Amino acid sequence: MLEKRYETADIRKACVRDSFWDRYTGQVPERIIPYQWDMMNDRISAEEKSGCIHNFKAAAGEEEGGFTGMVFQDSDLAKWLEAAACSLATRPDPDLEKTIDEAVDLLERVQDESGYFDTRFILQEKDKRWTNLLEAHELYVAGHFIEAGVAYYQVTGKDKLLNIVRKNADLICDTFGPEEGKRAGVPGHEEIELALVRLYQVTGEERYLDEAYHFINERGKDPSLLLRLHEEYGSNIFPGLICDPPYNQTHAPVREQDTAEGHAVRAVYMLSAMADLAWYKQDEGLLDACERLYDNITKKRMYITGGIGSAGVGERFTTDYDLPNHSAYAESCASIGLAMFCRRMFQITGDAKYADTMETALYNTVAAGISLSGDRFFYVNPLEVWPDACRKNPDIAHVKEERQGWFACACCPPNIARTLASIHQYAWYADEGSLAIALYTGGRWETTLAGERAVLEIATEYPFDGEVRIKIDQLERETPAKILLRRPGWTQEMQIWVNGESISVQASGVCMIGIERTWKQGDEIRIQMEMKPRFMQARPDVRADCGRTALMKGPLVYCLEEADNGDDLQALRVDPAQGITEHMRDDILGGVMTLECAGYRLDREDWGDELYRPLAGAAREEKPVKLTAVPYCFWNNRGCGEMLVWMRY
Amino acid sequence: MLEKRYETADIRKACVRDSFWDRYTGQVPERIIPYQWDMMNDRISAEEKSGCIHNFKAAAGEEEGGFTGMVFQDSDLAKWLEAAACSLATRPDPDLEKTIDEAVDLLERVQDESGYFDTRFILQEKDKRWTNLLEAHELYVAGHFIEAGVAYYQVTGKDKLLNIVRKNADLICDTFGPEEGKRAGVPGHEEIELALVRLYQVTGEERYLDEAYHFINERGKDPSLLLRLHEEYGSNIFPGLICDPPYNQTHAPVREQDTAEGHAVRAVYMLSAMADLAWYKQDEGLLDACERLYDNITKKRMYITGGIGSAGVGERFTTDYDLPNHSAYAESCASIGLAMFCRRMFQITGDAKYADTMETALYNTVAAGISLSGDRFFYVNPLEVWPDACRKNPDIAHVKEERQGWFACACCPPNIARTLASIHQYAWYADEGSLAIALYTGGRWETTLAGERAVLEIATEYPFDGEVRIKIDQLERETPAKILLRRPGWTQEMQIWVNGESISVQASGVCMIGIERTWKQGDEIRIQMEMKPRFMQARPDVRADCGRTALMKGPLVYCLEEADNGDDLQALRVDPAQGITEHMRDDILGGVMTLECAGYRLDREDWGDELYRPLAGAAREEKPVKLTAVPYCFWNNRGCGEMLVWMRY
Repeated sequence: MLEKRYETADIRKACVRDSFWDRYTGQVPERIIPYQWDMMNDRISAEEKSGCIHNFKAAAGEEEGGFTGMVFQDSDLAKWLEAAACSLATRPDPDLEKTIDEAVDLLERVQDESGYFDTRFILQEKDKRWTNLLEAHELYVAGHFIEAGVAYYQVTGKDKLLNIVRKNADLICDTFGPEEGKRAGVPGHEEIELALVRLYQVTGEERYLDEAYHFINERGKDPSLLLRLHEEYGSNIFPGLICDPPYNQTHAPVREQDTAEGHAVRAVYMLSAMADLAWYKQDEGLLDACERLYDNITKKRMYITGGIGSAGVGERFTTDYDLPNHSAYAESCASIGLAMFCRRMFQITGDAKYADTMETALYNTVAAGISLSGDRFFYVNPLEVWPDACRKNPDIAHVKEERQGWFACACCPPNIARTLASIHQYAWYADEGSLAIALYTGGRWETTLAGERAVLEIATEYPFDGEVRIKIDQLERETPAKILLRRPGWTQEMQIWVNGESISVQASGVCMIGIERTWKQGDEIRIQMEMKPRFMQARPDVRADCGRTALMKGPLVYCLEEADNGDDLQALRVDPAQGITEHMRDDILGGVMTLECAGYRLDREDWGDELYRPLAGAAREEKPVKLTAVPYCFWNNRGCGEMLVWMRY
Repeated sequence: MLEKRYETADIRKACVRDSFWDRYTGQVPERIIPYQWDMMNDRISAEEKSGCIHNFKAAAGEEEGGFTGMVFQDSDLAKWLEAAACSLATRPDPDLEKTIDEAVDLLERVQDESGYFDTRFILQEKDKRWTNLLEAHELYVAGHFIEAGVAYYQVTGKDKLLNIVRKNADLICDTFGPEEGKRAGVPGHEEIELALVRLYQVTGEERYLDEAYHFINERGKDPSLLLRLHEEYGSNIFPGLICDPPYNQTHAPVREQDTAEGHAVRAVYMLSAMADLAWYKQDEGLLDACERLYDNITKKRMYITGGIGSAGVGERFTTDYDLPNHSAYAESCASIGLAMFCRRMFQITGDAKYADTMETALYNTVAAGISLSGDRFFYVNPLEVWPDACRKNPDIAHVKEERQGWFACACCPPNIARTLASIHQYAWYADEGSLAIALYTGGRWETTLAGERAVLEIATEYPFDGEVRIKIDQLERETPAKILLRRPGWTQEMQIWVNGESISVQASGVCMIGIERTWKQGDEIRIQMEMKPRFMQARPDVRADCGRTALMKGPLVYCLEEADNGDDLQALRVDPAQGITEHMRDDILGGVMTLECAGYRLDREDWGDELYRPLAGAAREEKPVKLTAVPYCFWNNRGCGEMLVWMRY
């Protein structure tokens, strides 16, 4: 039923370079990787301590002291290893490679004969391995190490880490399964499933694929299973956390789930594996569920920024259209997971809508997750921030008014790092006869065009400008092939030229536009996407946004910041009828297109000290003002202050 | 410096009767008192179990089983006893009196020789009495029993309960104090202070007043004291609860506190005692602090409904102007406490503004706390409710979409009961030479007018109508005296006639208008307050209310309900320019004045299934509709549905 699957760009042969992503990807080797390594080694004294590397040294018997941090603290190292591996792909660095190898050696010394290496259960509760699937995250940690092992092998060809994680994966396959003598159960936090698929992809070993399929198939068949296992375990790793079946997506078999429920990161990690397995197992039920849950997320449960999971308690989905702005959770990791899921859906369907969603998540929430300095992070990504309330109203204690250096639960920083280090794998795709460009990142992509080696050089100022030039280089002979270009859903018009000659495009809405011809060395595709800034609205069902509008330009959501508009942003009202003007500003945020529009500010001058008073007639007590908006992803790079996406109009 | 103090109406000689309060006070003996007694005796099977009476029986050795419920579960009985006592004052009921006496006998059997009777620490941790002042609530429970003992003595003259609580109060005085050998410490939850003042008022025993003064004076001098005592105690009664010093108002000495902080109920109970002590100790520093904190609450931290405490986590104050509507806490008990505080401030200052605030709290939030059926209660009083989110977004799990039959923490139901049973004590006041009418409740008030017995008969349809008739009856001889009438802050005009003759009133804003003359039997005061419905606004600092308006008529805040306006209330916008019409509706809510105004509803018809889309020009996609509002206090008496106070305009 599924006919083909795009491969992502080869991690070793692609490199994103453009003025937007350079702000972030340029930081990966320079700042992000070293900073996070120092943090995991507890070398940065002023921040929340990690203890991550300590745990490995202690588990190897090389350092005193017990386990410290979250039960899944090991996964920080795993995600960092994956990020570091990806970074090496585009920028070789012998020192970094040596550091990675030493970390791999340490992991090897921790791993026992059975293949087990989770430091939490080596240092504590040795006899309780694999028992508390609800909370213990052992399969989650294992999954992230598999992803690291696969990436490091793909980039360097070194198989030591791959062999370590294979041994661990074999242990998992021997431990969990439907066969007599194996344990029942599914992971409380999905991740192992998509990781086992990746392990299958590089090893060709079917048992990994089958184990992933087993976990997905069993999920939700017995909704109380994880709770029973937890009861047998006998204590709480996370006291007070409500792990009801929907929290872990175990409330119903995955093929019968109609709405995205529970912990948002878990949900999209699960969906990522389901999309992979829909392909490899040609499983229509899984594909249907993926499409249904994608629709539920993107049509009812997603912020305009691509953030998902609106509740702080449980970091979870709530109900359709419940998207409060100032108390949003919208975890950085959840938007990364959404992009991972959409990438896989795009790979197997080629449907451009998934690329649109991926783009929304990456250019807004994921990018917002990290400072332009590369060493501060948002875990939570609200659409409205009033610092005073963040500090003093414990109901929104999860919303931080500024990016943090590290977290007690530090899942996001290394997750952002590995995502930034592999942006090209979200952008560019190939199958036997065609190439597909899903995201208009600039850069260099060495690939195979219908069997022929080719290098695509992509130059653009996207997303500040809608022009993209794609030059086909190093193509040794003329090659008939199809190149597919995404027509984003947000554009009104998209024009394409090949070697200056206009291509007739009969398309509207989001779709892939295929150009089929015989390509030759030096061919140039030029794309021009209409990218006027626009006022957006949410459907009236979204309570928080009624009577409000948000500014967008291309895929970028904009926001008002106190730095440009003064404080009390809630007192501002925009007048959409007066239009929007664009200003390229080189003096702020490393160069950015700002949007300006006319509006009004509620006047406080004629108020005494009263809190409430009668409305004075029908006239609004307002003063005209100019509003200046900057891209949401860049907010909070100019000190602490208020921020607002949805403005009253 | 404080020259006089009004006494509240004698509990035995006053009775509120009007069409507003009859809905509630009429229920007190008929429904509320018996229902709550059955609940505390665990005779109502379908609801949250109380275990309250069981705890007393177990502590008396008359029933098997240990302590159950909250550490302060005993206080439910205490508040119920006070409510029942007040109820007897206006409606004798031998069966109820017998029940009370049996409960008093039970308490007597629980009390040990030292005077101690807290069942939690009799049944558990006998050796830890009076140690964990941060969490254990022993002084809070003791205070509520003192209030019950005082009320029952005042109403019936029976002193058995009074003697029991005196013995307990003596134990407290012997245990805590500045003297050598006594314990240091202040209560984690204030209540004992105001109760000891009440005990002093009926007994004349100075040590009770001094003990209250001691607790107030010590409070906050040593901010970490309660935390240190808790550490010595060694475990957590409320795991996870953050009891930082501001939570308990121990962050600074009370005279140095500038903002209302922490748990809202505690703050206003503390302030109530401070107001009392400002009078009895002629303590200017306390009076200043009371005025300052009153200003902070009413000018920066109070909902338009008189609700206070905007955070669910910690049931607490947050920061100035942080008044979110859908996640409001605004506990019923906190508004009761605000009324208690304002009553005391009115008693010692005679300033009408305190009566205005008291009225706002009582007619809106306190009344909203109980159903018209008398047996369902709101603990939390939000100003916007979307039932689906209340059920599915754990961030607002504290907000219940419907009143509940009982609560695990059942502080509010009996607190509402005792307040309803003593409304006249908030309304009517007397001192040597004058009477003061602070609230325009109807009813009968037997009092002393400058030394002469008189009965005031007050007839009104207030708050649905602004006319009040006060007839002076049973006045045996002509008496020169002053009668003070509150001019509410919300009225534009107030006219007064005595025996049909207009009295010249030169006043604006909130104030007391004094009529000094020689009164005689049969004199009639007629008051006419302009009470046009009005659109209100919050100052622009209140983020949640910017661009919104609320409807009020007199002291009543109105709201939209789904029952009258359909669902998706957020899609509605009101047009204030088109005015408000009033409709007396006898068919709903036991007879109620509804307010109607013109508005618009955001149209969903031209939407597909997309979540976001560009704004279509500047034109709003709206349809005209009629909006119908009902008094906020009566909401949720017609089934589960949405509710909204602050409407977009």
